[in-house]
Amino acid sequence: MRLGVCLQALYHLSLRDALSAARELGFELIELPVDARSPFLDLDEALGGGWRRIGQEIRDAGLGISALSNHQEGQLLLGPHSSDTDPIHPGSAEEKVRYATDRLSRTAELAQRLEVGVVCGFTGCEDWSRWFPWPLSDGYERMAPGFRERLLPVLDDFARHEVRFAHECHPKQFAYNLETAKLALDLVDGHPALGFNLDPANLVLSGMDPLAFVAELGGRILHVHAKDAELVAPHAARSGLLAHGAWTRPDRGFRFRVAGWGYLDWKRLISALRTAGYDGVLAVEHEDPTMSRLEGLRKAVTHLEPLLLREPADPPWW
Amino acid sequence: MRLGVCLQALYHLSLRDALSAARELGFELIELPVDARSPFLDLDEALGGGWRRIGQEIRDAGLGISALSNHQEGQLLLGPHSSDTDPIHPGSAEEKVRYATDRLSRTAELAQRLEVGVVCGFTGCEDWSRWFPWPLSDGYERMAPGFRERLLPVLDDFARHEVRFAHECHPKQFAYNLETAKLALDLVDGHPALGFNLDPANLVLSGMDPLAFVAELGGRILHVHAKDAELVAPHAARSGLLAHGAWTRPDRGFRFRVAGWGYLDWKRLISALRTAGYDGVLAVEHEDPTMSRLEGLRKAVTHLEPLLLREPADPPWW
Amino acid sequence: MRLGVCLQALYHLSLRDALSAARELGFELIELPVDARSPFLDLDEALGGGWRRIGQEIRDAGLGISALSNHQEGQLLLGPHSSDTDPIHPGSAEEKVRYATDRLSRTAELAQRLEVGVVCGFTGCEDWSRWFPWPLSDGYERMAPGFRERLLPVLDDFARHEVRFAHECHPKQFAYNLETAKLALDLVDGHPALGFNLDPANLVLSGMDPLAFVAELGGRILHVHAKDAELVAPHAARSGLLAHGAWTRPDRGFRFRVAGWGYLDWKRLISALRTAGYDGVLAVEHEDPTMSRLEGLRKAVTHLEPLLLREPADPPWW
Amino acid sequence: MRLGVCLQALYHLSLRDALSAARELGFELIELPVDARSPFLDLDEALGGGWRRIGQEIRDAGLGISALSNHQEGQLLLGPHSSDTDPIHPGSAEEKVRYATDRLSRTAELAQRLEVGVVCGFTGCEDWSRWFPWPLSDGYERMAPGFRERLLPVLDDFARHEVRFAHECHPKQFAYNLETAKLALDLVDGHPALGFNLDPANLVLSGMDPLAFVAELGGRILHVHAKDAELVAPHAARSGLLAHGAWTRPDRGFRFRVAGWGYLDWKRLISALRTAGYDGVLAVEHEDPTMSRLEGLRKAVTHLEPLLLREPADPPWW
Amino acid sequence: MRLGVCLQALYHLSLRDALSAARELGFELIELPVDARSPFLDLDEALGGGWRRIGQEIRDAGLGISALSNHQEGQLLLGPHSSDTDPIHPGSAEEKVRYATDRLSRTAELAQRLEVGVVCGFTGCEDWSRWFPWPLSDGYERMAPGFRERLLPVLDDFARHEVRFAHECHPKQFAYNLETAKLALDLVDGHPALGFNLDPANLVLSGMDPLAFVAELGGRILHVHAKDAELVAPHAARSGLLAHGAWTRPDRGFRFRVAGWGYLDWKRLISALRTAGYDGVLAVEHEDPTMSRLEGLRKAVTHLEPLLLREPADPPWW
Amino acid sequence: MRLGVCLQALYHLSLRDALSAARELGFELIELPVDARSPFLDLDEALGGGWRRIGQEIRDAGLGISALSNHQEGQLLLGPHSSDTDPIHPGSAEEKVRYATDRLSRTAELAQRLEVGVVCGFTGCEDWSRWFPWPLSDGYERMAPGFRERLLPVLDDFARHEVRFAHECHPKQFAYNLETAKLALDLVDGHPALGFNLDPANLVLSGMDPLAFVAELGGRILHVHAKDAELVAPHAARSGLLAHGAWTRPDRGFRFRVAGWGYLDWKRLISALRTAGYDGVLAVEHEDPTMSRLEGLRKAVTHLEPLLLREPADPPWW
Repeated sequence: MRLGVCLQALYHLSLRDALSAARELGFELIELPVDARSPFLDLDEALGGGWRRIGQEIRDAGLGISALSNHQEGQLLLGPHSSDTDPIHPGSAEEKVRYATDRLSRTAELAQRLEVGVVCGFTGCEDWSRWFPWPLSDGYERMAPGFRERLLPVLDDFARHEVRFAHECHPKQFAYNLETAKLALDLVDGHPALGFNLDPANLVLSGMDPLAFVAELGGRILHVHAKDAELVAPHAARSGLLAHGAWTRPDRGFRFRVAGWGYLDWKRLISALRTAGYDGVLAVEHEDPTMSRLEGLRKAVTHLEPLLLREPADPPWW
Repeated sequence: MRLGVCLQALYHLSLRDALSAARELGFELIELPVDARSPFLDLDEALGGGWRRIGQEIRDAGLGISALSNHQEGQLLLGPHSSDTDPIHPGSAEEKVRYATDRLSRTAELAQRLEVGVVCGFTGCEDWSRWFPWPLSDGYERMAPGFRERLLPVLDDFARHEVRFAHECHPKQFAYNLETAKLALDLVDGHPALGFNLDPANLVLSGMDPLAFVAELGGRILHVHAKDAELVAPHAARSGLLAHGAWTRPDRGFRFRVAGWGYLDWKRLISALRTAGYDGVLAVEHEDPTMSRLEGLRKAVTHLEPLLLREPADPPWW
Repeated sequence: MRLGVCLQALYHLSLRDALSAARELGFELIELPVDARSPFLDLDEALGGGWRRIGQEIRDAGLGISALSNHQEGQLLLGPHSSDTDPIHPGSAEEKVRYATDRLSRTAELAQRLEVGVVCGFTGCEDWSRWFPWPLSDGYERMAPGFRERLLPVLDDFARHEVRFAHECHPKQFAYNLETAKLALDLVDGHPALGFNLDPANLVLSGMDPLAFVAELGGRILHVHAKDAELVAPHAARSGLLAHGAWTRPDRGFRFRVAGWGYLDWKRLISALRTAGYDGVLAVEHEDPTMSRLEGLRKAVTHLEPLLLREPADPPWW
Repeated sequence: MRLGVCLQALYHLSLRDALSAARELGFELIELPVDARSPFLDLDEALGGGWRRIGQEIRDAGLGISALSNHQEGQLLLGPHSSDTDPIHPGSAEEKVRYATDRLSRTAELAQRLEVGVVCGFTGCEDWSRWFPWPLSDGYERMAPGFRERLLPVLDDFARHEVRFAHECHPKQFAYNLETAKLALDLVDGHPALGFNLDPANLVLSGMDPLAFVAELGGRILHVHAKDAELVAPHAARSGLLAHGAWTRPDRGFRFRVAGWGYLDWKRLISALRTAGYDGVLAVEHEDPTMSRLEGLRKAVTHLEPLLLREPADPPWW
Repeated sequence: MRLGVCLQALYHLSLRDALSAARELGFELIELPVDARSPFLDLDEALGGGWRRIGQEIRDAGLGISALSNHQEGQLLLGPHSSDTDPIHPGSAEEKVRYATDRLSRTAELAQRLEVGVVCGFTGCEDWSRWFPWPLSDGYERMAPGFRERLLPVLDDFARHEVRFAHECHPKQFAYNLETAKLALDLVDGHPALGFNLDPANLVLSGMDPLAFVAELGGRILHVHAKDAELVAPHAARSGLLAHGAWTRPDRGFRFRVAGWGYLDWKRLISALRTAGYDGVLAVEHEDPTMSRLEGLRKAVTHLEPLLLREPADPPWW
Repeated sequence: MRLGVCLQALYHLSLRDALSAARELGFELIELPVDARSPFLDLDEALGGGWRRIGQEIRDAGLGISALSNHQEGQLLLGPHSSDTDPIHPGSAEEKVRYATDRLSRTAELAQRLEVGVVCGFTGCEDWSRWFPWPLSDGYERMAPGFRERLLPVLDDFARHEVRFAHECHPKQFAYNLETAKLALDLVDGHPALGFNLDPANLVLSGMDPLAFVAELGGRILHVHAKDAELVAPHAARSGLLAHGAWTRPDRGFRFRVAGWGYLDWKRLISALRTAGYDGVLAVEHEDPTMSRLEGLRKAVTHLEPLLLREPADPPWW
């Protein structure tokens, strides 16, 4: 296992400075965001040749790329296609779907150019509140065919680029827990280009046990986000798991944290990943409203670095 | 406190038989559903004079009415106004809102005729998945003005009928936890016609502690549903709190249960209600997929009847 | 085991009515309070011959006496001797001690007359806040000789009357947890007339585990109070275990409850008592601010009656 | 579901009196022990025609038979074949195996005569301490072929008698937890005559979650023992789960209890059985060292009777 | 946030050596005790001019002063005024009160001279055991007027010196939990000179949740003690929370510990302080009977240093 | 306290390299295995004079010896004497006992030569599955005389060599929990040469609380193994505590871990050892199937080194 970082927390820096900061903080790998919001690159420019310069800058900084990420644009595949997603790409549902499909394809192409085997991302969901069967009792099931129809071509495209799509289970996505992740795999007939970016904090927010995910779907985990989640005492008793509103609200009952500052037991998670045969990156994602960009990353490194299992296990000697 | 029953579990019977069954099961009060789906009455017919017969039948059965309920049609006030709610009333958003407003008004009028002070119900929510601020970071806040705009006239109308609206916090409603219940009250300037129908199982599903709700908003609790909630071991570790799909799925990680068969500690809840000054009904709502209609109601009575506090507390004597 | 009741909850009735109510509620035994505050008897009058009438009334009601109780006056043995205890008996420390000693002696004498082997009570404590060694680091230890000096003659007197003193561990008493109960026994050289009235709710308030008390001192348990204790969620997080002020305060974080409505697991407690060889009374003490006098007693009976172990265990047959 | 009783707790009575007691206690079914230790019948005599009388006596008492049981003699199939099992049947290992095979066959034959479809029992285990791989690291695996070799003929024999063998997972048996139960099924190629007698208390003693057993092997549960298990506080911290010695030892950290007096949540267990499609008996097994034979059975009935689900669930109506 | 140290643990050194040790251990700030027991200064001598030298020595050591402390003498404001407090200052109650008032005033004056804005301390309590309303049911309430009467002049005096009084909630003080802290504020009309020195270990001893204190009174927290608390397994089951006697007793069920070695979750506490806007000192107080003076301080630094949040949080960037 | 290491994890190296690795990893002491499986020495050769060279090599590496260990051969004292132990020493029961007695004697002799006061080891158990009293109800008790008979001469022999035998409680040993450890001491009349090697992970596997062991038998703890234990979620619900089969099975519900990666709270354990007066070695034993030999040792050092209490506690200064 190696330590990586999701570069979003360093968006205030130039790519060069961000890479240098990442290296200084002790990371070995980066997850490089390529959606339109990324200040580090323009996807079209990169495909037009810029990828060579980007790859070189990253190598020069002594870093590798664990994955490209494009959560934002993938969201439009399944929606919602209301005005909620206009800031990503305005237009009709069809236009949004087309945009998402196209942008994911370009993301895969760039990954291939950069010799990166994994793209992390979202697929969206027409109306995620349908997990609860009211007022439409079979609303969730009705969305299943759409998932298959929209995702299969994307996965075929990825396979052509020799890249795999690491879907991140998350509220608002069709696959948001272990059950829907398995359903998603079934809906695409276990397509080899589909796997998962395990973000355990998102699974805590769905109320499930990330260790159950690793135990059952470990073989499909392509990438791991090191992000933590906290039920904030004593506010959680009032917010519930499903707190709304601004992340900086002092009485918000749920918040994401840097690894080591939330509910997750990283030793158990790392051990489970090891047992399941995962030997890839732990990419620190920092969305912790209590810490500065750099201090948050530093705290995560302080917590995780001593826990990484870097050597393969030996067979029993006792 | 007295024991009541939500009549939906007896929809397979005629009103007369349902009332007789309720009485035999040991209930003293009924919550009478008046939405279009109710087989027991037609709202227009009732307002046209049928209410006298209905009231008489109920009195003849030795029962009282704790509340009328109209969850279904209230849902259309705020939506969603997509096809998901067409089964309730098809049409444009405006038509759905108008329908909801009108039906709630008639419900209040009937309540007044029947001398029932409380109507339980929903208000809906434009897009409830916005509790999580992605992809629209202030989506939940944007829905607040609409809540005020649509609910204030309804509450004024209720006040004219000397009836109060007992909103039930529930996933898919604007107010679904303690925080949003307080927000709802604030948005209507603490309108005296607004209160709550406490359904503790719904609050468990939001991940919050029903006792916190009682402690803070006890004075606004107008009605109580005795419904229980279960995280179903060992499936909950895989489903999370937010399980999707059919209620009868054997590996569903969450389900509603009859009182006494889930996570709730009814002694603590009843004690908290007593301490908060509530002395009304516990209306058994049976949506338990593991039990028959009658056996479920029987189990709930068996659990709750010995726990009811029927006498006012004495001042300390020790 | 048999079910009894502490008569204080029935102080609003005449003795005759109280006995009749106790019998109707399903109790078999009473704990009879004999301190000056008891409306049921005057200790001097009783010793002057009234005991015959009292005993007869109790027998006539079909009840037995599990113990006499005199917590109030025993308190003055060790104090505090400040004005805090003037309502019990005003005067100097010496006068208060003398009063306590005398009243306890009369209580023992009455017990002998009524053929009751146990007197439940308190001994007081000079300054109970000394459990925490600030500002006087050995304050608790300094009180030990006084315990021995004042209690030994009382115990000898009890022995002469063939009665045992069942001390109730409680905040404000020298012996308030398992450790101090054992210390108390040591200080009187294991005097055979000293035992304990186990009130598990008091032990919960000291923060200890009543089952540990039964496991270690089971052989000295002479009487048991069936009283329960509740950390009242969500207020306990703010009150702590050591809540102050009126028992009826709605946000009080701790309160006593009738058996079955608090934290105690009565099946485990009854099993532990059985295993320790105790086969006496469970005397319901009702100090529950949420229930009326009679409803509280009824709830306790409802909870405890089905749990009583009335037959001796058989040797293993499997 | 119906309530039954394992008759061992009534071995001090004649069969007639035992049946009459069972009926009075509220049971509808009995599990009838047929091993040599049973005072109620002699297997050979029964097969020789006595079965008619026995069946009649049981019917006359208004009872049915949920299963025959022969744990004791089945133990000799796999052992241990040391002197530890001489009280069951002395002799060489071969003789013991032959005895077990023969006695199980007769048990199946008697079941067929009495029209009982299930025989509960054990199979033994050569050396059960081999679950821990020291000093022989593959000791458990080495015993697997023996299980197949000895059990397959027994199962075939049972199938011929149209009876199924309900193996009870238990310490000292080859199958003692969910994993070994599945291994056992695999070793006999999922033989249709093999199922399980779920004794949840035994599973608690193995440290596993009985609900996991029901969730995974529910379809193979043929019979259920209503027996409870207790980690006895505070002794369990010293004994551990694996307490040794006499069941009546007061400081024994583990003991079996009657249903409702241990760790098991019977509502959850009954709900899980219902969800898994089980609709058979809950047969009370009383091995509780704290209660008399009859009081223990009474306590179990008091706890379980109100929890039984007697009607099939209705499809959702809400 | 910065790390500080309460100098009492270094009383065996000269001030110079203590400062030097503090610096070497990694502290940046000191809490300087100024009561008569402090070997580091004489309050009168300091006010007479010595403060310049003291301030210089501290600056020379590269340290700052987070607060002066005078717990001991403040105790005499409210008592107890029995012989228990004679070691602090002998005399009548009036003399003790006068002494406390005078010493607190001088402490405030010295703080002003040293440009330190905070004085930590106690106020005492007439009879703290009155939190439990026996035998005087309103004993605690009776003490409230005295608190106001004695504290208001002290606070006015502090305000004149531009210093705030950081009261430490603690057993034996009038304000010992969240409720009494709020009561204290109310009794002095929210006097701006009154705030709190949060010692979370003391709050654990009162049985409450320190996070609740931070959530509700965070804006009044002027200073923080980094001290931990442990319920010592398995002794706590016997001692209860309220263990008496010597801190070194091996079976004492409760003890204070250095930060990181007790029950407190310092990440959660630091996060709560951050969310509440606190950005001051964490002053390590070492009263851990299991560690030497220096090793204890070292362990606390090892635990806390990596957890300090030194940078302000950034606004959300994700 | 000092940090040591059990050398088995370094069996792939020569003694010289193993010592050098141990030193580099930060250990100060070694536990030296001397059974026939140890590649580091031959017991006979060592006694014939090799001990001088071995001792010198260890001293040269800057290391000390905390104990010799001979678990393997000690196992044969009590068995099992079946073929399960043939790999240790084949032969009849008598031959195995003789071999064990002889090898333990030589081990003690070598310890004396090397000036090591402690030998860690096992004694075995005839049939450990007898902890559960089925089918032989007094099987465990029957083994007690054998323990006394075989161990007493060994202990006398050890005493002659001025060495103590530190028995390690473990499944498959006669003494496997606190109760049997005390029984073992009783059976040898509290022989001064008998003490314990506390391996807390083994006690977790027996289901008991290691802190209870330290509290009661702390004075007999001669040596401590720093080994951790994990109930592996979510598999433990299926395996139970008593998982069988290969340590590397991915769904094994129980496994040993390096210190800090399992269930144990090392701060609490170290504090308990300190309070009980233990000031010896924490010898890291690495049997963690998820980590390589060296990485596992490194992780253990990283966890434990900052927790060691190296200085004696000071008397209270506050």
